[in-house]
Amino acid sequence: MNLSLLMDLYELTMVAGYLREKKQDEPAAFDLSFRRNPFEGGYAVFAGLDPALDYLENLSFGAEELRYLESLDLFDETALDWLRDFRFRGKVTAAAEGEVVFAHEPLVTVEGGLAETQLIETALLNFINFQSLVATKAARIALEAGTNAVVEFGARRAQGPDGALGAARAARIGGARATSNLLAGQAFGLPVAGTQAHSWIMAFPDELSAFRSYATVFPDSCILLVDTYDTLRSGLPHAIEVAAELRAQGHELRGIRLDSGDLAYLSHEARRLLDDAGFPEVKILASNDLDEHVVASIRKEDGRIDVYGVGTRLVTGAGEGGSALSGVYKLVELGGRPRIKMSADRDKCTIPGRKQLWRLSQTDNARHFELDVITAAGASPESGHRVYDPTNPIRYTEVDAGLLVEDVRSVVMEEGKRVHAAKSLDDIAAYAQTQLARLPDGSQRLLNPHVYRVSLSAELHALREALIEAATAALPGRANGNGR
Amino acid sequence: MNLSLLMDLYELTMVAGYLREKKQDEPAAFDLSFRRNPFEGGYAVFAGLDPALDYLENLSFGAEELRYLESLDLFDETALDWLRDFRFRGKVTAAAEGEVVFAHEPLVTVEGGLAETQLIETALLNFINFQSLVATKAARIALEAGTNAVVEFGARRAQGPDGALGAARAARIGGARATSNLLAGQAFGLPVAGTQAHSWIMAFPDELSAFRSYATVFPDSCILLVDTYDTLRSGLPHAIEVAAELRAQGHELRGIRLDSGDLAYLSHEARRLLDDAGFPEVKILASNDLDEHVVASIRKEDGRIDVYGVGTRLVTGAGEGGSALSGVYKLVELGGRPRIKMSADRDKCTIPGRKQLWRLSQTDNARHFELDVITAAGASPESGHRVYDPTNPIRYTEVDAGLLVEDVRSVVMEEGKRVHAAKSLDDIAAYAQTQLARLPDGSQRLLNPHVYRVSLSAELHALREALIEAATAALPGRANGNGR
Repeated sequence: MNLSLLMDLYELTMVAGYLREKKQDEPAAFDLSFRRNPFEGGYAVFAGLDPALDYLENLSFGAEELRYLESLDLFDETALDWLRDFRFRGKVTAAAEGEVVFAHEPLVTVEGGLAETQLIETALLNFINFQSLVATKAARIALEAGTNAVVEFGARRAQGPDGALGAARAARIGGARATSNLLAGQAFGLPVAGTQAHSWIMAFPDELSAFRSYATVFPDSCILLVDTYDTLRSGLPHAIEVAAELRAQGHELRGIRLDSGDLAYLSHEARRLLDDAGFPEVKILASNDLDEHVVASIRKEDGRIDVYGVGTRLVTGAGEGGSALSGVYKLVELGGRPRIKMSADRDKCTIPGRKQLWRLSQTDNARHFELDVITAAGASPESGHRVYDPTNPIRYTEVDAGLLVEDVRSVVMEEGKRVHAAKSLDDIAAYAQTQLARLPDGSQRLLNPHVYRVSLSAELHALREALIEAATAALPGRANGNGR
Repeated sequence: MNLSLLMDLYELTMVAGYLREKKQDEPAAFDLSFRRNPFEGGYAVFAGLDPALDYLENLSFGAEELRYLESLDLFDETALDWLRDFRFRGKVTAAAEGEVVFAHEPLVTVEGGLAETQLIETALLNFINFQSLVATKAARIALEAGTNAVVEFGARRAQGPDGALGAARAARIGGARATSNLLAGQAFGLPVAGTQAHSWIMAFPDELSAFRSYATVFPDSCILLVDTYDTLRSGLPHAIEVAAELRAQGHELRGIRLDSGDLAYLSHEARRLLDDAGFPEVKILASNDLDEHVVASIRKEDGRIDVYGVGTRLVTGAGEGGSALSGVYKLVELGGRPRIKMSADRDKCTIPGRKQLWRLSQTDNARHFELDVITAAGASPESGHRVYDPTNPIRYTEVDAGLLVEDVRSVVMEEGKRVHAAKSLDDIAAYAQTQLARLPDGSQRLLNPHVYRVSLSAELHALREALIEAATAALPGRANGNGR
């Protein structure tokens, strides 16, 4: 599918306007950032960059798309000609996929002509908002699952075919180990996993013959769903019977799946029954509306679940704050001059100018994150200097000496071409795990997490204040007109 | 994209098992239903049928898909050969797209061989869960908006490119009048709409020149975003100035857009300023995290908003109960015999057998819905007879005489081919509006809506009870093993 029309109409009406004003090539810079960590959590996992770069490299309007645009009677020949020849030729600076990031940070900066940098807004936000949302959700669930595996089971409840595909990719980045979705297995080389449905059990005269049949077909990868009739009275005894039969034939039952009822309790009982029968290696899977909170509660009761099959709430990023990351894409510099978008809320005033994002970490073995500092491009944080809270200008702190200083972002695209080959999903997922382990104490907490400090350098803070002051001074009267 | 692998692995392992057992052609029937109305609401709008039928008509495994499946080392030659030749040849009975439906109802019944009817589970659920969720959300928002228009603005926050495309389609079915997404405009012939971003305003030395420039390029479709600096002190006075200039040139300003602040208050002020300046025809658009609750609150204060631009919460179906419709697909008949899936919760015991879904309505002009009755296939509801609550078997009622009786569903696919051509989205949307108007009082209420009665005929109720009894009697012991 040609995705060139995956954009809000206004991107193109603005481009047409810039062409008319001959502003299309004015050098511009846009920042992509979000205002609140998803799920009222302490962090986010950045994802979606590779699909976004893929989109940018391939973005081109075909004959069919141009015919459609012409049919809208909104665009003149100049605009249509410009679109016909269009290729994205800008520069992209971004955090690595899998990076742990925070609200207010410039995750992606796009530099290029004003028209090309505007045009890509909708698609860039679409890829990164959704992938980062699900990667973050997966990380939250996987962190609660500890050393136990999380498997993504959500295709049937995902938001469209591509919602399922994209979610499987992002879930892997955040820490899921496999997917049930074959399309995702094929597209991304992910391990695929599955058991059987209740319908399989119901298609046989009784549960035992259903179990036996499945074990015959898949003797070395057999996981039995035990709750169709009654988990403890029927499902587990039958599974144990089949496990013994398999062993007599030189195979081992792989696992059983719990899909309803009190999962913590049932997992204890199932473990005991399996162990007592001589099957301590048979794994216990659980599914049924799981999320990080349910997993945490099961683990709090020492639930004996080895694999969590997580569907709906993972692939839709359901939870506190709604099923979307509220990423925005804002003009920060034009023609070499910093730009600001005002708002009655300080929180929603943009941070002007091209910038750099620095991470200052402890020099302990774990290299725990201490503080992120946003500076103007070309500057860097200096120890002993003040840095300011972007949401509340009267709060500031001083940068400690002796911290490890890292530039969080790098140039990933020059003149519309990727600078590096895409990384493997396994590498991205491993990087995410490394970075998640560096979060300070309390950041991973589900409820009221530690608020990680993201700060502006004194210089950037002063620039922002000056632009706010200038914009306010230019207004007639004194009232605050967005409220009352 | 070939969507044939859009399925959970277990669909195919089960198919392989059925082939091994020579059960693949046993005549089977599956019902698709959901257990709770979305958003804790009083109804749902059924959508996604046409994409689902399209998928079924075109489902076929290509060489690449077969190679992938072979690489998994799970499937023998018999299974791969069967998949190579596979075409769906089943029968589908379904409610019309746009129909108003309720929890527990069989919305779609798929009949055919056991293997083919199982195979399509994941994709069918994916299409219908997501489309019905968003269509329902759109209906809830549009009902609150009354005669004012709702426009879908969500592409940047949707769950992937196809999440955006599918959401635009479903939003139209539920009552949105247009979309900002050009890809959806092209794919579905939807009207497209848009204004401009803050970046446009910021790309000019001042707001007035930004407004003037946009009005010059689009003199007859110009809607101005007025909150970049200050809505009442700057945006509106400048918009009125440009409206006067446009009028002097023989054009009229189309509208203004509010995107932050107190929308009810600002819309009153904006309306007054525009009216006083001689521009009563200039429309007021509003956006900024809208949903049915925000729209209801704005209307309660007599907000003067003509068009609601709704994004994130519409396209992700955000709200009470999470961002997914929890549709399930359950085996209800095999080899001519009704099947049931047990559960410790009566609510989650399936309703066995092939059935018909009847709607009984008042004979008043509005033909208000009174009661839905599910009967066995071939039966129909009889006045004076008892019908039973599927969630609580001790609750029953009697069918009143003199009600209008309609069969809610019809055969839409025979031997894998559509029976009728696809309906236009406008026709589907019009049908949804007609049916929504027939809801009884209180069903549209956002909080604690009227619970519409969905009942089982006495015969179907007795069948279900008998199967539950038989399944329970077959269990050893007495404890309720899914709980404690």
